[in-house]
Amino acid sequence: MDHARNKLVELNKIEEKLKSLVEEKRYKEAMTLISVLNEVDIAELIDELDHKTGAIIYRMLPKDIQAEVFSYLGSDQQEEIIRSSTDVELVQILDEMYMDDMVDMIGEVEPDLVDRILKSSTAEDRKLINQFLKYPEDSAGALMTVEYVSLRRAMTVREAIDYIKAEGIDKKTIYILYVTDSSRHLEGIVSLRELLVSDYDKKIEELMNPDVIYLNTLDEAEEVTATFKKYGFEAIPVVDREGIIVGIITIDDILNLMEEMASADFQKMSAITPSEKPYLETSAFELAKNRIVWLLVLMVSATVTQKIINGYEDLIGSVAFLSGFIPMLMGAGGNSGSQSSILVIRGLATGDIITRDWLKVIWKEMKVSIICGIILAMVNYFKIIYFDKAPSTVALTVSLTVMGAVAVAKVLGGILPIAATKLKMDPAIMASPLITTIADASTLLIYFALASSIIGF
Amino acid sequence: MDHARNKLVELNKIEEKLKSLVEEKRYKEAMTLISVLNEVDIAELIDELDHKTGAIIYRMLPKDIQAEVFSYLGSDQQEEIIRSSTDVELVQILDEMYMDDMVDMIGEVEPDLVDRILKSSTAEDRKLINQFLKYPEDSAGALMTVEYVSLRRAMTVREAIDYIKAEGIDKKTIYILYVTDSSRHLEGIVSLRELLVSDYDKKIEELMNPDVIYLNTLDEAEEVTATFKKYGFEAIPVVDREGIIVGIITIDDILNLMEEMASADFQKMSAITPSEKPYLETSAFELAKNRIVWLLVLMVSATVTQKIINGYEDLIGSVAFLSGFIPMLMGAGGNSGSQSSILVIRGLATGDIITRDWLKVIWKEMKVSIICGIILAMVNYFKIIYFDKAPSTVALTVSLTVMGAVAVAKVLGGILPIAATKLKMDPAIMASPLITTIADASTLLIYFALASSIIGF
Repeated sequence: MDHARNKLVELNKIEEKLKSLVEEKRYKEAMTLISVLNEVDIAELIDELDHKTGAIIYRMLPKDIQAEVFSYLGSDQQEEIIRSSTDVELVQILDEMYMDDMVDMIGEVEPDLVDRILKSSTAEDRKLINQFLKYPEDSAGALMTVEYVSLRRAMTVREAIDYIKAEGIDKKTIYILYVTDSSRHLEGIVSLRELLVSDYDKKIEELMNPDVIYLNTLDEAEEVTATFKKYGFEAIPVVDREGIIVGIITIDDILNLMEEMASADFQKMSAITPSEKPYLETSAFELAKNRIVWLLVLMVSATVTQKIINGYEDLIGSVAFLSGFIPMLMGAGGNSGSQSSILVIRGLATGDIITRDWLKVIWKEMKVSIICGIILAMVNYFKIIYFDKAPSTVALTVSLTVMGAVAVAKVLGGILPIAATKLKMDPAIMASPLITTIADASTLLIYFALASSIIGF
Repeated sequence: MDHARNKLVELNKIEEKLKSLVEEKRYKEAMTLISVLNEVDIAELIDELDHKTGAIIYRMLPKDIQAEVFSYLGSDQQEEIIRSSTDVELVQILDEMYMDDMVDMIGEVEPDLVDRILKSSTAEDRKLINQFLKYPEDSAGALMTVEYVSLRRAMTVREAIDYIKAEGIDKKTIYILYVTDSSRHLEGIVSLRELLVSDYDKKIEELMNPDVIYLNTLDEAEEVTATFKKYGFEAIPVVDREGIIVGIITIDDILNLMEEMASADFQKMSAITPSEKPYLETSAFELAKNRIVWLLVLMVSATVTQKIINGYEDLIGSVAFLSGFIPMLMGAGGNSGSQSSILVIRGLATGDIITRDWLKVIWKEMKVSIICGIILAMVNYFKIIYFDKAPSTVALTVSLTVMGAVAVAKVLGGILPIAATKLKMDPAIMASPLITTIADASTLLIYFALASSIIGF
């Protein structure tokens, strides 16, 4: 092993070399170059080629790694390979795939290929696929796979290990084993580690842990990731309403799910309709579609601030200097509010905050706004007096407005996401843009009220 | 197994029951109640009690689960237990802990306890702890643990399995095994699954995969999580500059790391100094400290918009109606810009976008702004004419400004995070607040320039 290599640089070099070998149709050398790599890396390299060439390289791979490489390919390249496969080849590919990868693929390829895939699957797989496709997106049922090892409580450790050796080869994990009765009710779990270090004549029922942590098929993505984060298990079984084990979810699939969920939250918080497609693969039209709705809503809701300002036109007309502070005041309020809302939304997502904590959150945000408000107001007061050389009545008006704006925005920012959760809405939509609009209106009302009374218009 | 139970509700019920049993000092019954639970749940329940009572319950737990429960306890409860332990008890606790958990704990407890912990550790552990504490936070070196199983290439499968049975009991994983030479250079890896299904007389070197995916001690958190996400491995070895294996990182620790990293990004994007402490455990003073710096920066930078508006005081004074549109225009620009920046920042974080793509991003954002800009301008034009009943010159000025504001903000929002990455800065700080400030200034300049020429002041 060359310990000084940098993995990324190395892969980039191999990619260049592979492309030039392929151009010169030196496929055998190309094969020697990539076949020593990890399956994930081989798939990544094939995805970088044009689909036709990718399919040629794929077909030349050793049979024993083809199946795994196939699962890691992008859906476009998978389509190309399926289209150029005979029915016999397709059966071979599908036979080697895990059920969760197959369901993922079916969700992404063109409808005509779905038909061909279903026709080439065994009757049993076809039934399973149809059942899996019925579960809501990202629910435990949609995320699970069926390739797990189940044992019986009456087996000895020796019998269990022999069974794992014989049956474990296509299973997604053999390290956690599920003990079931004859009607597949989940009775307990046991790890391969426990079997290995035990007396081989012991019965499984003596070793198994009957207090199983499990998920239900309809548990949502949040519940699934929270359970994995809490326990750190490698795999968690999924049971139906009758307590029958229907599949398992493995931790490697959770990493991608967590990333997708975080991305969706980021998008919702910045007023974008969430989309799982990578940015560069999304068309400008689709990107615009995901963004325009909220932009329109926010534009129309800004009518409120417009009307407030219009109501004070005479004041602005005579003390035009005042309007110069409007952007700063609205910025201070908006930013303060989004700081609070993001922390609370994030706390709700990670479970650090629950709705019961609403009074604590208000109280904390009030204290924070007093500290931040006083500091901002003071800096602002001296800036207006010494830098803008404005009268102290203006400085006082603006500074007091800053304090009020920060307080209103922070308390709103803290409480609205909790209120949304309580009303079974997604707290992430309560993020910056919406709170900014409400904070903007309050800030302006405070500003003009103070200006009228202090500057004495 | 009771399949109809809801795990959360059940744990809440046990918590109430435990508290009432503890109040009545019925400790034995309390023990019967919780000792059947998973160690993670037991730790969670103990954390809910006051620290003194928690320590009592902890001491009554069966010895074989104490160690694991201890690792999952909050650092306050860990402190209380260590403080009330004899030196002998402390040695027992430390002896059972994984190195990564020990290093985590040392990072969180009071300094006087760190001394006691180090004194109660073996000389070898002490040396390791000191070495681990030197790695940068969240680097591979700081995340790894040392409890892995290493094999030699000349071993037979039978010898290897016997060795794992004997030595594997305290190892963090026995499912991935590391093949090293006599000076601990990493030569290959092999999984327990491969050993189990192989001929027991085969040599390890025939089975091992010499193309090991590994991390270096100084690899940063982003590299660590990206490697786990890409390959989905259960554990990845960490080697030093000489290619010597110094530890392994397991996937269960990556879930928490990913969540921390996402939280830090959320905080940076909303102009907050990132902090890992849960919201409710952070004092108001500390929360204010994390937020005030950016609020001050943004307040001072709003001087730019203020000066622009001041420069057009005469215009505003005579057409005061115009100032009513300022919040809406700035909102449209600010929201458009943060939509783009968040998508690009997120794309950079997940690897979907690399700095080389900057031209593609600009081009895409330009197309998106044309679509969004035209729709917003049209809606706006008709709203001003028919709803505000303002003259068409005003409607035209405002609508053209919207288009310009959206275009400037979206292109800036798309390109600034990439520029930051190129300059080796964190792209997340280029999020909404900073971009909003620049977009605000451009919006106002466009607005007043158009107003002067169209309304003909």
